[in-house]
Amino acid sequence: MKQTLKVSIAQINVCVGDLSGNTEKIITAIAKARDEQQASLVVFPELIITGYPPEDLLLRPRFLERVEQALQEISLITKGITAILGVPRLIDNKLYNQSVVLQNGEITATYSKHHLPNYRVFDEKRYFNAGSETCVIDVAGVKIGLLVCEDVWKEQPIQATLKSGAEVLCVINASPFRLHKTQERQTILQRQSSQNHCPIIYCNLVGGQDELIFDGQSLAYDNTGQQIFQAPIFESGVYPLNLPVKTAGQAIAPIKHSENKTIYNALVLAVRDYVQKNGFHGVILGLSGGIDSALTLAIAVDALGAENVEAVMMPFRYTADISITDARKQAETMGVKYREIPIEPMFDAFMNALSDEFDGLQRDTTEENIQARSRGILLMAMSNKLGKMLLATGNKSEMSVGYATLYGDMAGGFAPLKDVLKMRVYALSRYRNSLGEEVIPDRVITRPPSAELAPDQKDADSLPPYPVLDDILQRFIEQYECVEDIVAAGYEEETVRRVVNMVLLNEYKRRQSAPGARITKRAFGKDRRYPITSAYRKEL
Amino acid sequence: MKQTLKVSIAQINVCVGDLSGNTEKIITAIAKARDEQQASLVVFPELIITGYPPEDLLLRPRFLERVEQALQEISLITKGITAILGVPRLIDNKLYNQSVVLQNGEITATYSKHHLPNYRVFDEKRYFNAGSETCVIDVAGVKIGLLVCEDVWKEQPIQATLKSGAEVLCVINASPFRLHKTQERQTILQRQSSQNHCPIIYCNLVGGQDELIFDGQSLAYDNTGQQIFQAPIFESGVYPLNLPVKTAGQAIAPIKHSENKTIYNALVLAVRDYVQKNGFHGVILGLSGGIDSALTLAIAVDALGAENVEAVMMPFRYTADISITDARKQAETMGVKYREIPIEPMFDAFMNALSDEFDGLQRDTTEENIQARSRGILLMAMSNKLGKMLLATGNKSEMSVGYATLYGDMAGGFAPLKDVLKMRVYALSRYRNSLGEEVIPDRVITRPPSAELAPDQKDADSLPPYPVLDDILQRFIEQYECVEDIVAAGYEEETVRRVVNMVLLNEYKRRQSAPGARITKRAFGKDRRYPITSAYRKEL
Repeated sequence: MKQTLKVSIAQINVCVGDLSGNTEKIITAIAKARDEQQASLVVFPELIITGYPPEDLLLRPRFLERVEQALQEISLITKGITAILGVPRLIDNKLYNQSVVLQNGEITATYSKHHLPNYRVFDEKRYFNAGSETCVIDVAGVKIGLLVCEDVWKEQPIQATLKSGAEVLCVINASPFRLHKTQERQTILQRQSSQNHCPIIYCNLVGGQDELIFDGQSLAYDNTGQQIFQAPIFESGVYPLNLPVKTAGQAIAPIKHSENKTIYNALVLAVRDYVQKNGFHGVILGLSGGIDSALTLAIAVDALGAENVEAVMMPFRYTADISITDARKQAETMGVKYREIPIEPMFDAFMNALSDEFDGLQRDTTEENIQARSRGILLMAMSNKLGKMLLATGNKSEMSVGYATLYGDMAGGFAPLKDVLKMRVYALSRYRNSLGEEVIPDRVITRPPSAELAPDQKDADSLPPYPVLDDILQRFIEQYECVEDIVAAGYEEETVRRVVNMVLLNEYKRRQSAPGARITKRAFGKDRRYPITSAYRKEL
Repeated sequence: MKQTLKVSIAQINVCVGDLSGNTEKIITAIAKARDEQQASLVVFPELIITGYPPEDLLLRPRFLERVEQALQEISLITKGITAILGVPRLIDNKLYNQSVVLQNGEITATYSKHHLPNYRVFDEKRYFNAGSETCVIDVAGVKIGLLVCEDVWKEQPIQATLKSGAEVLCVINASPFRLHKTQERQTILQRQSSQNHCPIIYCNLVGGQDELIFDGQSLAYDNTGQQIFQAPIFESGVYPLNLPVKTAGQAIAPIKHSENKTIYNALVLAVRDYVQKNGFHGVILGLSGGIDSALTLAIAVDALGAENVEAVMMPFRYTADISITDARKQAETMGVKYREIPIEPMFDAFMNALSDEFDGLQRDTTEENIQARSRGILLMAMSNKLGKMLLATGNKSEMSVGYATLYGDMAGGFAPLKDVLKMRVYALSRYRNSLGEEVIPDRVITRPPSAELAPDQKDADSLPPYPVLDDILQRFIEQYECVEDIVAAGYEEETVRRVVNMVLLNEYKRRQSAPGARITKRAFGKDRRYPITSAYRKEL
């Protein structure tokens, strides 16, 4: 007889620090798994009681006490079901990142994560001690070995756990989204399950948390390396799974999502969770008639609903008529509240006030910055007065080279496109329009990009064409290529040096920028930590 | 015969990433040690070729190649002297934080740091692998054991190095300043040298690097635990030392500096290095007639000279006459360029532009923010046009509770008082005045603090008295006390809850704030990493 185990994968969306709210969600999921899905086992993600990453909250003794109370509270309702969930725990005054087993109202076993990631966005060695023991539990006669996230990427904990008698591996995760991450997970799980003839349950977190997006997509593999389960991407839910223990299962084709669809939906989730988890119901943004704000508006509407989004066009003497036409058109198509507030009077007031100070000095970017900052003040004033979060609309190409005004267009609570290069902004805009109505007017996509801060200004006047700029940036920032490498790839040395120099020089601006959603291998923020004070650009 | 070793301690100030500039400074110091001081050994701080901390520059292959080239270049000039210096090095594709010995034009020995700090401001496990070997070298017949920073705080590397035959321990450091840190270093070095009957040379970095201040104060202890040397605080130099090897030396009294003097000078160094290392010659700041901007102005003048500092008073209808009088008086006393620019026209222009949007809505902090942000734009415009860095003047008490306007008074490249609580701002102001002329008008110190953003506004209207506020903040932020602990110390529960809630709620503002100098056990920035999205305040 084929032996199967009824498992529920609780891929849920929690909020960091919301111990009582998260506890309630966990209890609800356990009840659903047991009472509706008749599961023997329900599996939750890594650090699910606290949310991931709790950062320095983990250094507060009272926080850890509350977490332990929450764990005890959850344990009480595990009659008739086994629950596995992630929680930080102090053992002999040392903190561990644990997978805890709750059965019949008690904590019956624990596993401490062996491999603590401390690279890219991860700082786990700041908080946790590494475990070294294995943990194999019995659920309905099946021996289940526990692992936490990074452990399943390494040989040592897997082999030790199998040696301890595990027939099934259960990995709890808080694995953040970035492009191509799903395939990497699938490759490692396929290999580990087939080589070790051992099924694997892989439960991942879902939801946005500051810069990070967790995509869910929990997985299961049978003991031949076949993928037999894949939970939805970016969706919270408790998913039932019949896991074959010592036999092959029914293979499913891995669900693939197009890059643009995946990124677009990732950004929608990031905006929704950042706005809502921070207690805002709506957002406001400056709509310029350009593509960045147009795409940001589309994402905001898809995330929060048109009724919760407000767009403001703030024209100036350099604003083209078509910019105003296109902004109006998009706002109308998307059904959002729309205002026009010319910035001429504010700009003039500043220039007047500064006329003595600036007497005899050349016009330069100062005057452009005053335009951007007047808009920033207007938007922040509306944000403050109406209680709507301001979204910054800049993209990664601009953030990289400093083509943005600090306290101007960089102002805002969240920057949805912060990790999206300009060419991807175009691709995402076309993707969104391909879904139905042309929500981003075609002319916004096809006209030459301009900040419209000076007469007849075009981005191409001061920056290389975006296909060139983006490739240089991607090579320098994500691939760590040096100037010589990038030149060898076919770019002019002068252009490469200029771009790289701008990237290094503008660290100070990025340090004061709003957080944004991470979608690449190297996003600005926790993922990329550069000194502001640095003379390395002299050495290039 | 007493055996002594002629050592030069090269406590120098370098810039992160400035590989060629730092190399030049190192070569100059080696020549001075050998040719002027006749030293057998010259000791440099940890990671001196790169500066500390180089952060993610360490992930760039080309950066590490250049560092290695610099090391080879330095090694060439070590004829007739031994140099010990810190450098990051790739060995078999793994990165180590090394102490490298250069002798007669060659690298003759290396030691890899055993204990990698990964707490507070430190992220060394993000970059480095831990060493496990000891390294003892011969300099003029004396066996010298190498250690790097954290290693001297632990027993294992010291005992292993002594077992390998070391007669003298040589520790290279990049140990950042904070209050009471000197005494902690002295206590550990006293203990290790006396218990192990072994002299210790302790060479520390000096200079400001973004949030960090390195105070220098290199030390030496004889084999009885007596302090025999202490280099100046906050000063760069190459200091000669005659180290007794197997006998007691001439004890000196540890040099103690008063708290206020030390902090004041730390802030002066931080401002000077941040401004100059980032290529600015001067600064600009808003002078309000209040104490924070008054103290910031004094620090700026002491750091950069009056000729490089410009103060701008931007009065509004709520600005008291005495504020203008006192600002003028201070600017005159300090001899800085001074401007007055009323913000009435800008404020009115914004309110006019927003009149439709705000129609029927109550006045609230929005209008106060417009005042602060109009000032921010003016200052940033002058900063942009004149090439002077804007200093933000907010203190730690304000930063903690969010009593500051994002993109308004929070605007700036550097925030000297970011880690200075309000009561300390008073103490530092009195300290500065005690040095001679009353550079901060006494009335600025004695009048009740006010942001002057509304009629007759006083800080005390919306915040607890500063002695209470500061103590609650210090307990919550630095000591990790919880609400109950702080209440038990004698404060009203409602007040404590309100303050703690404000601290947690305002993480989003601090995330976009300028960097500031760290002087306490827990500064905002790399030292304290909290999620923005967090519901923990609901759990208090």
